[in-house]
Amino acid sequence: MTQISTKPPSGMRDYLAADLARRRFVIGVIQSVYESFGFVPLETPAIENLSTLLGKYGPEGDQLLYRLLHRREKLARALETGSAGELDLSDEGLRYDLTVPLARVVANYRDLPAFYKRYQIQPVWRADRPAKGRFREFYQCDVDVTGTTSSVADAEVCAAVALVLQRLGFGDFTIHVNHRELLSALVQDAGIAAESEGTALIALDKLDKIGREGVLKELGERGIDASRGEALMAGLESAKSAGFLEARATRGEDSGARGARALLELLSLAEDTPARGTLRFSPELARGLSYYTGPIFEITVPQLAGSLGGGGRYDGLIGMFTKQKIPAVGFSLGLERILLVMEERAMFPELAIGPQILVCRFPDVSAAESLRAASELRAQGLRVELYPEADKLGKQLAYASTIRAQFAAVLGRAEIDAGSIALKNLATGEQRTLPIREVRASM
Amino acid sequence: MTQISTKPPSGMRDYLAADLARRRFVIGVIQSVYESFGFVPLETPAIENLSTLLGKYGPEGDQLLYRLLHRREKLARALETGSAGELDLSDEGLRYDLTVPLARVVANYRDLPAFYKRYQIQPVWRADRPAKGRFREFYQCDVDVTGTTSSVADAEVCAAVALVLQRLGFGDFTIHVNHRELLSALVQDAGIAAESEGTALIALDKLDKIGREGVLKELGERGIDASRGEALMAGLESAKSAGFLEARATRGEDSGARGARALLELLSLAEDTPARGTLRFSPELARGLSYYTGPIFEITVPQLAGSLGGGGRYDGLIGMFTKQKIPAVGFSLGLERILLVMEERAMFPELAIGPQILVCRFPDVSAAESLRAASELRAQGLRVELYPEADKLGKQLAYASTIRAQFAAVLGRAEIDAGSIALKNLATGEQRTLPIREVRASM
Repeated sequence: MTQISTKPPSGMRDYLAADLARRRFVIGVIQSVYESFGFVPLETPAIENLSTLLGKYGPEGDQLLYRLLHRREKLARALETGSAGELDLSDEGLRYDLTVPLARVVANYRDLPAFYKRYQIQPVWRADRPAKGRFREFYQCDVDVTGTTSSVADAEVCAAVALVLQRLGFGDFTIHVNHRELLSALVQDAGIAAESEGTALIALDKLDKIGREGVLKELGERGIDASRGEALMAGLESAKSAGFLEARATRGEDSGARGARALLELLSLAEDTPARGTLRFSPELARGLSYYTGPIFEITVPQLAGSLGGGGRYDGLIGMFTKQKIPAVGFSLGLERILLVMEERAMFPELAIGPQILVCRFPDVSAAESLRAASELRAQGLRVELYPEADKLGKQLAYASTIRAQFAAVLGRAEIDAGSIALKNLATGEQRTLPIREVRASM
Repeated sequence: MTQISTKPPSGMRDYLAADLARRRFVIGVIQSVYESFGFVPLETPAIENLSTLLGKYGPEGDQLLYRLLHRREKLARALETGSAGELDLSDEGLRYDLTVPLARVVANYRDLPAFYKRYQIQPVWRADRPAKGRFREFYQCDVDVTGTTSSVADAEVCAAVALVLQRLGFGDFTIHVNHRELLSALVQDAGIAAESEGTALIALDKLDKIGREGVLKELGERGIDASRGEALMAGLESAKSAGFLEARATRGEDSGARGARALLELLSLAEDTPARGTLRFSPELARGLSYYTGPIFEITVPQLAGSLGGGGRYDGLIGMFTKQKIPAVGFSLGLERILLVMEERAMFPELAIGPQILVCRFPDVSAAESLRAASELRAQGLRVELYPEADKLGKQLAYASTIRAQFAAVLGRAEIDAGSIALKNLATGEQRTLPIREVRASM
């Protein structure tokens, strides 16, 4: 029999105890900050109908969806034709982000609050080429407010993620903000046709990865005239100058002016939240996803290519699922990136993992007596492992070190008969005997 | 444009805040009990290679696997042949249980402790026909000990799940235990050939669903002579008589005697753990999965068809992934069934959900000032939602009730200027004004 591979699939990871201690620590902070802002949790299935997923992320997103193969009769029927394509073989796929499932949920449950403030921390799957820090299964940690176009909601999602990062110990992040309508006006100002805006933004979104020249080249490949590409890049550059937003906000009543005013309001409101001092207007910020309609956000820290999270306003997405137009804004933190930076910067506190005490077994003590002692220690709230076999004490103590227990409990006949226990501190080697019922209190 | 369905796919569910409060409560209890036994957490990817999954669950299990469709070139190449089958179109599938991923992990990471005690609480996916209480995505909560054949490990996994159920408030559960080797001997005693044992056990596993006559019929359909089917059922019936295990344990040295002895030891050890009084020998217990080799377990409560969980010893499974033979035993609690029974029996405590305070907005107070007040309350550790729009106060108070906030905070010009806040208790209608910095302390 050939050996089966024991690795997880490409781009996927197993999380062992030490990984999970760190992941749960970060998720705990995120959850408690999100809840402090009044967000309530939501979880949606890993599997969604393809009709829910397709056409929401742009063509590049659709390409990266994991699709589930039909089964039994349905598969047989599709294959019978001899000309089955992707869409004949599948009508379900894996969750690609947490925003589209939220939009579906808001459209589906009519008794949600008028302002549905939900957070969601779940994995998503993208069949992307795996690379350092890029996985095919990764966690997103989203907050969204639906039902309002108020800038207060925009400011609050920025405030929530800013407070998360501060609580985790980040002191040097920037929340870049831009506005899709302003960006749209800049694209038009460069003479690029409205129908090419989407494709132009996909190219622009790669600026931090491929640089100015790379974007110009890709704009060309996407059918945008070189002089117009140059004009766009020049327009974005000049938008970085001081006073641009203020000037643009008062120039006319077009979408560009509206966008500039919305950004000014957001920048001002954020000053009265934990996001104070962290927002920066970045006119070249584009965000790859096609559903954004208003302010867009992205968080960076020095020395990290890519972002810790991003988001924006998407007033049209929920309307793709229901006749009612329901505005929404949200922010998504990327758990894997946060963990990566925290690990590189050694930002984690000491995290407790595994049993505190290993109960060793002695030849003159029955398994039943050892089980009883372990139960008694556990009832005190301690994390206790019982050595399952009757090995030599030296081997049991060596094992206690490999599992990093703090104490080995030595329970011989004398201790059992006296209702006591000998506790050996594995770091110091110190050993003392005490009544078993006092162990927790003595630690 | 036709409306997209807003429902989750068939057999899947969205979990809203109230659902999640209950799910998290139960998961929290499970996690803390499992950790008290020294188990450490593991999480594995939703996606596994099909080579990992196939051939582990028996033919019925393989049928229920969700398979992921190949993408791009790989899909095109498979379809080109014009005769592509299921296995040509996919080489990855969704996690079907938590035991097979554990076996893969134990084989893959050579530096795990000799006795790897892990717990894992994650969803699994099975393309089963959805029915009441049967979902296609559902959570399992597993504990397993690998690396030992000791009955102490068998007793400890039973003890851990028993303590979980007690902590949740279950007083009336039974852990049915049987032994695959004993069952195997009973099958042989009935004159059923060894190679038919697997198929016979699949039929027997349906006893609680289809009854004795149903099992006999299915045994016939599976090619087992009617007289032998009758003999098996009679043998199982007589195994229920008092003293059977003790007698069988001393009758010879065959696998049946070994199984009986192992069960007697387990039943005895369990008496010195929280599982005391909950185990019962059930000779007709079969468990559907093909990988069990020793003791098998299943938990029932009165008035619930089906089980709250199950498990057993599987000393051969890890060896399918590595040359080394590594024994293992585990127990899996089914979260959905536990929740179902707890809901029917109203076993949940009061669980806090959502914001405690809704901060209302007044025309004479700026958004920035309201944001500052909300920040101050949140910094006190309170869960606080800020009403995002400038609506009439009555509408804001009505909203506070729909989100079940405990208090509405009324912040007019006078309060802002005085650094105070008026808190309206939404249950009693009582209202009082106090300094904003004292809100948490006063609650």
